[in-house]
Amino acid sequence: MRPAGSHGRPPKKIVILGAGFGGLEAARVLARAPVEVTLLDRQNHHLFQPLLYQVATAALSPGDIAWPIRAVFRRKRNLAVQMAEVTRIDVEGRRLHTADGREIPYDRLVLATGATHSYFGHEEWAEHAPGLKTLADATDIRRRLLLAFEEAEVEEDARARRRLLTFVVIGGGPTGVEMAGAIAEVARLALRQEFRRIDPAQARIMLIEAGPRILPSFSEELSEVARASLERLGVEVRSAARVTACHASGVSCEGEEIEARTVVWAAGVMASPSGSWIGAERDRQGRILVAPDLSVPGRPGIYAIGDLAAATDADGRPVPGIAPAAKQMGRHVGKLLAAEVQGQPGPGPFRYRHHGNLATIGRRSAVVQLDGLRLTGLIGWWFWGIAHVWYLIGFRSRIIVSVQWLWSYLTFQRGARLITQPAGEARGARVPHAASAGDAGR
Amino acid sequence: MRPAGSHGRPPKKIVILGAGFGGLEAARVLARAPVEVTLLDRQNHHLFQPLLYQVATAALSPGDIAWPIRAVFRRKRNLAVQMAEVTRIDVEGRRLHTADGREIPYDRLVLATGATHSYFGHEEWAEHAPGLKTLADATDIRRRLLLAFEEAEVEEDARARRRLLTFVVIGGGPTGVEMAGAIAEVARLALRQEFRRIDPAQARIMLIEAGPRILPSFSEELSEVARASLERLGVEVRSAARVTACHASGVSCEGEEIEARTVVWAAGVMASPSGSWIGAERDRQGRILVAPDLSVPGRPGIYAIGDLAAATDADGRPVPGIAPAAKQMGRHVGKLLAAEVQGQPGPGPFRYRHHGNLATIGRRSAVVQLDGLRLTGLIGWWFWGIAHVWYLIGFRSRIIVSVQWLWSYLTFQRGARLITQPAGEARGARVPHAASAGDAGR
Repeated sequence: MRPAGSHGRPPKKIVILGAGFGGLEAARVLARAPVEVTLLDRQNHHLFQPLLYQVATAALSPGDIAWPIRAVFRRKRNLAVQMAEVTRIDVEGRRLHTADGREIPYDRLVLATGATHSYFGHEEWAEHAPGLKTLADATDIRRRLLLAFEEAEVEEDARARRRLLTFVVIGGGPTGVEMAGAIAEVARLALRQEFRRIDPAQARIMLIEAGPRILPSFSEELSEVARASLERLGVEVRSAARVTACHASGVSCEGEEIEARTVVWAAGVMASPSGSWIGAERDRQGRILVAPDLSVPGRPGIYAIGDLAAATDADGRPVPGIAPAAKQMGRHVGKLLAAEVQGQPGPGPFRYRHHGNLATIGRRSAVVQLDGLRLTGLIGWWFWGIAHVWYLIGFRSRIIVSVQWLWSYLTFQRGARLITQPAGEARGARVPHAASAGDAGR
Repeated sequence: MRPAGSHGRPPKKIVILGAGFGGLEAARVLARAPVEVTLLDRQNHHLFQPLLYQVATAALSPGDIAWPIRAVFRRKRNLAVQMAEVTRIDVEGRRLHTADGREIPYDRLVLATGATHSYFGHEEWAEHAPGLKTLADATDIRRRLLLAFEEAEVEEDARARRRLLTFVVIGGGPTGVEMAGAIAEVARLALRQEFRRIDPAQARIMLIEAGPRILPSFSEELSEVARASLERLGVEVRSAARVTACHASGVSCEGEEIEARTVVWAAGVMASPSGSWIGAERDRQGRILVAPDLSVPGRPGIYAIGDLAAATDADGRPVPGIAPAAKQMGRHVGKLLAAEVQGQPGPGPFRYRHHGNLATIGRRSAVVQLDGLRLTGLIGWWFWGIAHVWYLIGFRSRIIVSVQWLWSYLTFQRGARLITQPAGEARGARVPHAASAGDAGR
């Protein structure tokens, strides 16, 4: 299934929308082909999302896990990077419209806009239970987490103090497991001895999962190992428990009111809206139902990859929403378009290869499930650490992240423990978030 | 001049307001004395302000130059750190009032609240010409600086593009000189080859100083060296030039309208308002006129140090508003109070020792003026770099900052080139700054 030719001439202008793992990989392949590539993103940086929870829990700085997109492609003269907020796609006229009124034409378009949180129709929960998808999300959660301890230290009322020291993570997938483990370590280890009135180690950390067990994409055995590791860190794990409301004072769960100042949402994911811009057929999570070659049926010249695409592997199972899958799809579409423009045979249908599942639980434990290999505990953690440092883009980040990790491993310290919003704003949102940036931080 | 005893009992509760260089040093000395010390700050971190311009110009991350105050004093059991926004001081009742309604009693109070920007009565300039005092200021300026290049890349109109690529720094003291040099390097070196339509090296960078020469605290000869170094980097230096307005399209300077999207204010400094809370006598910059022992005349038990204090050295010259001076004052008051509580003789009047002046111009040049020693060029830069890494608090920061610097020195790259505000907000403030934090970054 090859895309229909555009206006009878070979495709020349290829636009990639989104510089996540999928878009970046497609751009890398196409930067070697005789085409003009434009890579668009709302941000100026590529984000290594698997480590975002480490920014949210103050182990790494934003700059350690993000990289300016331009810097990645500096030497690729056929590739232009633009910051752009796309608002509409003209499928017939083959052009994108941006928020600042520009039009960007394309011959082939690769949609790689990823996914965001989903609150299952309860968008009002977002305010009380922020999710973790961007650097801004991560520094927001870091601020909430650190401020909870600061406020508890000066709180006279015992019940209010208890609420400040209760942390709820909703969703038992890898992100939720990693967040809960990291929060437990902040409370039990990083903040040890630093407070005079409260004992951070007394904090209550809960992980709530609606399904029957945490880490459902892992084997039952590894899922049980993860639960036991979390419990050793002092995390209360509740599975088969459904959250029915998130509000200012905490969460409602199976009829119980859990008072908590800090709630993190790691439960639902929804594809970004670019599928609706082109009127493509989508699944319940908003993902585009792509053809076997990852093209969008009925939308000639448009492809969808990564978390935006509902693709299946050779056995008909859905391709998971993880970074390696996005990269494989990006590589596939990149090769397909490079072959097309050069009149060569394409790579055929996309075939997903699943390499494995990884999740870490605190600093000394991880669960790793690869083909024929299962690692747990400290060995799993080292495997996880090396794999992640390796995949971080750029030599510099590898060094810095390694030093940071070695430092926090040896000392239990977290170097990025900054509350960077101005104090007036940060302390319980008493001041509306309306100061101009120039006034911030006074 | 010893402070009057408080209620006839030995001073026990010492409160230090502000964890800058002065407050931190006073706390360090007092942490060894038989007193209860409470260290208050609006932020949870101590900031190494002399390197703030490197965050603003994307060479370092916020976490590299800031350190959680609690971590510094973890092992000092007689010292409690609290985040607090103080709004009022009851001098008679010897207690502080905080924004969240708490009262904090003291026997002795050390005011170390520092200084902020002054726009000489033109507060409306702040929006267009942000200053550089906090991490929030630095990331705001970083965002403006990087977005100017991003927007220029997609701007069709030549005049608008010219305006986007014009950067004005107002104020020729060390901060202004360092900012202008660093912006020039971002444009000429760090962004080289990364844009396809604009040439960042064509950016116009201006440094405007109202006085007759830049770096007035240095010798005329070094001031001339600094000017020549800046000009080699492509900075236009204008001295004896007064800015008469900052507005949305740029600045007015000596009758000329300079169109500039990015303007940085490094001209005026004003002491923070804590002097007015206690009704102390102040100079034109709002600094408290302290007694020779740094106590506040007529306000028994209260001391003022650092940028908040107008002190003089043995020759009657004003003590400059630099980090070493703040630290010396903090040490003096710390020793004075430690002696008082132990019934020992105090250290006598404060004597300022001036060690020298340092300013860096880009990556390869600095001017250093010490007693009997003048360094310029690359040797000056190395001296400056080693001195600053040395004074950074904490072993970890020293390693990380050294690696970052070595990396950017060898590669001309800047690792912290992140625009972290959400795209919708960041691009020219089209969206009002009112989204809840949970919505940020979509």
